Amino acid sequence: MRAAVMRDHRLVVEDLDAPEPRAGEVLAKTLACGICGSDLHALQHTERMVESTKRAGGVFDLDPAKGVVMGHEFCAEIVDHGPGSPKTLAAGTRVCSMPILVDAAGLQTVGYSNDHPGGYGEMMRLQEALLLPVPNGLATEHAALTEPMAVGVHAVAKARLDPEDVPLVVGCGPVGLAVIAALKLRGVAPIVAADYSARRRDLAVAMGADVVVDPGEDSPYTSWSEAAVYADPSKAPPLPPWIPGPATRPAVVFECVGVPGVIEEIMQSVRQGARIVVVGVCMERDHFEPMFGINKELNLQFVLGYTPEEFSATLHHIGEGEIPVEALITDRVGVEGVASAFEALASPERHAKILVEPWRS
Amino acid sequence: MRAAVMRDHRLVVEDLDAPEPRAGEVLAKTLACGICGSDLHALQHTERMVESTKRAGGVFDLDPAKGVVMGHEFCAEIVDHGPGSPKTLAAGTRVCSMPILVDAAGLQTVGYSNDHPGGYGEMMRLQEALLLPVPNGLATEHAALTEPMAVGVHAVAKARLDPEDVPLVVGCGPVGLAVIAALKLRGVAPIVAADYSARRRDLAVAMGADVVVDPGEDSPYTSWSEAAVYADPSKAPPLPPWIPGPATRPAVVFECVGVPGVIEEIMQSVRQGARIVVVGVCMERDHFEPMFGINKELNLQFVLGYTPEEFSATLHHIGEGEIPVEALITDRVGVEGVASAFEALASPERHAKILVEPWRS
Repeated sequence: MRAAVMRDHRLVVEDLDAPEPRAGEVLAKTLACGICGSDLHALQHTERMVESTKRAGGVFDLDPAKGVVMGHEFCAEIVDHGPGSPKTLAAGTRVCSMPILVDAAGLQTVGYSNDHPGGYGEMMRLQEALLLPVPNGLATEHAALTEPMAVGVHAVAKARLDPEDVPLVVGCGPVGLAVIAALKLRGVAPIVAADYSARRRDLAVAMGADVVVDPGEDSPYTSWSEAAVYADPSKAPPLPPWIPGPATRPAVVFECVGVPGVIEEIMQSVRQGARIVVVGVCMERDHFEPMFGINKELNLQFVLGYTPEEFSATLHHIGEGEIPVEALITDRVGVEGVASAFEALASPERHAKILVEPWRS
Repeated sequence: MRAAVMRDHRLVVEDLDAPEPRAGEVLAKTLACGICGSDLHALQHTERMVESTKRAGGVFDLDPAKGVVMGHEFCAEIVDHGPGSPKTLAAGTRVCSMPILVDAAGLQTVGYSNDHPGGYGEMMRLQEALLLPVPNGLATEHAALTEPMAVGVHAVAKARLDPEDVPLVVGCGPVGLAVIAALKLRGVAPIVAADYSARRRDLAVAMGADVVVDPGEDSPYTSWSEAAVYADPSKAPPLPPWIPGPATRPAVVFECVGVPGVIEEIMQSVRQGARIVVVGVCMERDHFEPMFGINKELNLQFVLGYTPEEFSATLHHIGEGEIPVEALITDRVGVEGVASAFEALASPERHAKILVEPWRS
């Protein structure tokens, strides 16, 4: 099969043996697979990412010297079943799946592994028990956005929002946009979002943001404060005399950037009692001043991934049109186009999500 | 009045004018005042502490070049009332108070201020509305421990413990001991506590710890795991196949050390889903790996101080003998002894809490 393979920090197109499904697995043809920001990071910093994930007790384990077929945001079609399969879903069925395999050795990732190729190749092995059929009428490329959108659904669930909470989404790349969509789905309002890119701010509005801010022009925290004032001042709790008014509703900030320094900047800028949900994946060592957290009694909730229930619910919401994903797809490439797509994704003005369609010539 | 004054990073005994109570204030004679670890830090790193607190939006504001009478853990006796006082509590009444004054300029600290001397001097001005009478029969020196014990009561309240949670207290200095006492007060069991000092581990047991660990000998996290196994295995939630058993109850770790690197070490060592309550006051910049938090979906709750209700409840609990404080008091000094007491407190094998009694000759 043809695949875009990560090898020695480069993406090269190679012909590989198609994987063979084992018991409990299916062989699936990749129909569409999104490029994730973590893949861009993995290409540049493979060794550091493996090393830091291992130290952090993660399941990410690969030998950077051997080839890796990345790609974990996919929609695929069942081609064949492994031995002893109940064949609950027939060959030809379009499916989504969490990008994991479970075997005796434990949890294995699809797309960050030497042994389990991801969606940047023509074929994958997938865990039969995890397959979710794509609803009739749902476009394949929309279904492929289930994985990144589920990240937002999970982050918002972990935030344990109260009705009065007003969110600020810092960073409107794919992660921030997924968080905005999940907030909108829950009826949260107003949603405040910040990004330096005009294109991404437009996408934030398309996904449901009520107020968008360019941090190069205005402070996101000032804009948030204006948006978070109680519409009915009689509902505002009394402020101590030394805190300047007016009172605002509680702050929940979603960190969706994932580069060093952003957590500290948020901790320095938010107000007393704010909760910070860390959704961005910063794979480097970071620094912060505990005093920022202490003086304001901040709460930091780190989140990762999603539950099987959230993943399934996300596919359903996309199928029902409750999470709008059309605007996020800015290009489609075949395996030859993966390397240049990685480069293009560095520009936030042009792209949100590029889909790899390995069957494209 | 005689006072131990912090001036140019030294503690010197000086004769100062007694403060004059303003409207809403009383003049109070210091009966006993505990030495806090933050005071030790302030003496060495005054400028950095002021600067970092200012950046963090704190209320701590003083000119290190001018003299400061520290001391914010006190029991005092009312001597006189400011103009227009309702005199709800008569002169001669023993009182405790949160170490703050509130005026038109905002919140002011007592004991970290050029203008509001703390309990290392013979006299203080206190806010009349904040005064709490010491219950009859409660020893003055026990009442003086209300402030540090309230820190533990507040930290445990902010932890929002579930009945199944098992705490690990990292560091058994005065802050950790206060947390242990507050956990015991709530009936939490088992309480696991770790400190390198044998003396402090003994004090941890006296305050209510069920399991104590010397991190130089054993891993606190291993000891915690052994203590946190479900007594009734049928109550344990099912574990995914790749996580080695047996299942443990949820972890809540109280960080009570407050030096750089400890938060990261805890983040690296705890298990999936742990909550970390940061009670230690690290006033320096710190570092951490966000991946530790992300992969394990950790939660960090920073806490500070206490509410007026918690402060008052703590005095009541000490009065009722529900928070045992006797063992914590390891020495008493006059103003001449403050400088050497600061030096002695560097040794955890000798001291927990030293009380300053400025009336001592």
